[in-house]
Amino acid sequence: MGNAQRRVTAAYEGIERAGRPEVWIGLRPEEEVRAEAKDVDARVAAGEALPLAGTLLGVKGNIDVRGLPTTAGCPSYGYEPAADAPAVAALRAAGAIVLGTTNMDQFATGLVGTRSPYGPVSSALAPERVAGGSSSGSAVAVALGFVDLALGTDTAGSGRVPAAFNGIVGLKPTRGLVSTDGVVPACASLDCVSVFARTLPEARRALALLASPVPPPRRPGPWRVAVAATAQLGELDDGWAAAYEAAQERLARAGAQLRTIDLTPFGEAAALLYEGAFVAERYTAVGEFVERGGADLDPTVARIIRAARDLPAHRLFADRERLAVLRRRAAAELGDADALLLPTAPGHPTSAQVAADPVGANTRLGRFTNSANLLDLCAVAVPAGEVAGRPFGVMLLGAAGCDERVAQVAELLEPPLRLAVVG
Amino acid sequence: MGNAQRRVTAAYEGIERAGRPEVWIGLRPEEEVRAEAKDVDARVAAGEALPLAGTLLGVKGNIDVRGLPTTAGCPSYGYEPAADAPAVAALRAAGAIVLGTTNMDQFATGLVGTRSPYGPVSSALAPERVAGGSSSGSAVAVALGFVDLALGTDTAGSGRVPAAFNGIVGLKPTRGLVSTDGVVPACASLDCVSVFARTLPEARRALALLASPVPPPRRPGPWRVAVAATAQLGELDDGWAAAYEAAQERLARAGAQLRTIDLTPFGEAAALLYEGAFVAERYTAVGEFVERGGADLDPTVARIIRAARDLPAHRLFADRERLAVLRRRAAAELGDADALLLPTAPGHPTSAQVAADPVGANTRLGRFTNSANLLDLCAVAVPAGEVAGRPFGVMLLGAAGCDERVAQVAELLEPPLRLAVVG
Repeated sequence: MGNAQRRVTAAYEGIERAGRPEVWIGLRPEEEVRAEAKDVDARVAAGEALPLAGTLLGVKGNIDVRGLPTTAGCPSYGYEPAADAPAVAALRAAGAIVLGTTNMDQFATGLVGTRSPYGPVSSALAPERVAGGSSSGSAVAVALGFVDLALGTDTAGSGRVPAAFNGIVGLKPTRGLVSTDGVVPACASLDCVSVFARTLPEARRALALLASPVPPPRRPGPWRVAVAATAQLGELDDGWAAAYEAAQERLARAGAQLRTIDLTPFGEAAALLYEGAFVAERYTAVGEFVERGGADLDPTVARIIRAARDLPAHRLFADRERLAVLRRRAAAELGDADALLLPTAPGHPTSAQVAADPVGANTRLGRFTNSANLLDLCAVAVPAGEVAGRPFGVMLLGAAGCDERVAQVAELLEPPLRLAVVG
Repeated sequence: MGNAQRRVTAAYEGIERAGRPEVWIGLRPEEEVRAEAKDVDARVAAGEALPLAGTLLGVKGNIDVRGLPTTAGCPSYGYEPAADAPAVAALRAAGAIVLGTTNMDQFATGLVGTRSPYGPVSSALAPERVAGGSSSGSAVAVALGFVDLALGTDTAGSGRVPAAFNGIVGLKPTRGLVSTDGVVPACASLDCVSVFARTLPEARRALALLASPVPPPRRPGPWRVAVAATAQLGELDDGWAAAYEAAQERLARAGAQLRTIDLTPFGEAAALLYEGAFVAERYTAVGEFVERGGADLDPTVARIIRAARDLPAHRLFADRERLAVLRRRAAAELGDADALLLPTAPGHPTSAQVAADPVGANTRLGRFTNSANLLDLCAVAVPAGEVAGRPFGVMLLGAAGCDERVAQVAELLEPPLRLAVVG
């Protein structure tokens, strides 16, 4: 039995043992996947160069995988895709083997991981806490070792917040870099396909197969990293400010030059994403479907999307003007910094806290991630130790096209304090 | 007395004699203008190179001119600008002399020229018919010889329809080519500053002082001009189809290669401008002001702007997606054509016809012009003879950056049948 087949067998055993069926929307039959693995093994044996041969892949439920319905977390919305999404096809062409589609906040509307008729997803490492979303299943599948890589999507932070809450790496490419064809849109003009992996090199290798960003030139010299004064971060979970400062110190010890910047334009852009008219694009995508109603609609998601119907277009024009100003201000703050270091989220709520305040708890989670796509930044979320025995994650944000550069800066934080990987 | 002073004196005499006070919102005192002219004459005498020395300029009432209130056709909206708009400043720096600000459809909302508390403006050449708008006063001031050049603005066709109805040239540059700073926005993301002149060379010289477009490369060979089948133009005024075909023949005789294309994407984009959500940008610009009410609001304009309040943002996102498709289809139809020849308007309504159906008559006028800014085209409207003793105009549209090229094609139609110039 070849390597790919062995890995598939082990993965299905681990999935069975872990007892986390809510991670998946559509786990493929083991026999079918094994047949694919056998083919990959045969091609490798025949000398074919497959950089991801035997790499096990999970795909968020809003991304087309041939042979599985695309549901976006809503079974009655589901359709049979004609083909793999280009992002899936690129990884498969490199030898990756798709185990199935993963659970998610319905229509990618949420950062919590609990808004799904397939069941709430809890953190791989802190079961009483949420997995984060909307790419909840993809992140947990990677964290639990079910798969090596998973694709997510990221509009407000869905490819980063779940990375932070499960102690893994989440790479959100520059907007437009990776095709979003075959992806159910959340906000079509902001959506990105993102990559989860347990380590940065694995995530970077996957991104290299998906896209080749062309970074703007950089001024020579040491890495320059912008950071925020803790006072500008707002309230954080206990111990998170100290953990953020520890990450700064680690970068400084690794030779990076730190500079404190004013986060105001980033915070104002983040607020625009949910408080402004941009959310109306979610209604453009699935509003008519949601209006028709359906027993499997998540009530919070349906409420948010229905409310987006009434946002006026004149406000969208005003928000776009405002955003243009904020983009210039944010770029001025970043200056020649290679990256901006921030906590990925302000805290990690329990499932009970989210249930008690579904919208408020969700909004809080996007405080640092929401601005990235509006400001045309790329980002990588990486583990940065633990607080109170639970994962703490930071995010490095960079200018459009600087995906590789930002990942290089993130590598200065490696190796993170290791977190147990189950499965 | 130098040339500039003589021209100013003659112009004020002509303006006085013509008895068309509704052309102006703010005609400057003759003494003040003469003092400026004296200065220009002195600079020329001293050897300064002023390419527009003594050229008389009218400026549409929504463009800032230092020393005159900017009203956008609504006195209670008016403000004292801090400086000339950059477009005005550029022409003044070249020696042009501003006589005043010109009448317009209020807030540049109209193609008729009748929607103004400063009085309706009728055509220079057919007094029972409308001047066309919204740059009504600028076009008539040029046609009547009050000024040599006038600045207008063009969102839906406001720089072209009045050119056609007054037998002059209207040049609408590529969007973004000429600064719209110091211009009261209509639809800020679509607005252009435009140029009126009696001849193409004068209009082109002015544009050259305002901007330097960089055209995309063209395939060598004769001019290639796309035209439409008359059946695709919809109903036209009597004799206008034949006049359009005569313009085609004239281009062919001048050596241009004609090719009939499908106008459908152009027509669908044109409809999007008024029937879609883009009009909401007018509410973004002046909605709050219009909501407060005011005795000098034009009732039709106020109704249109108030209705734009309720256009939903989700429709704007959908319209933008639709427009992206139409842009590709329109570009495919144009192919390697240097220009698309169309009538500027489908007909020339009488003032009575506009009064009887203010919105319907206006909508009809934009049938061929509305798509240009949405599809990112440049355009020039030029006289092309007469029908029933009244001016008939055609428009040449071209790809972004091809402003000069489109004007060169338009020159093949020169000299037009001369129309009487009064004043």
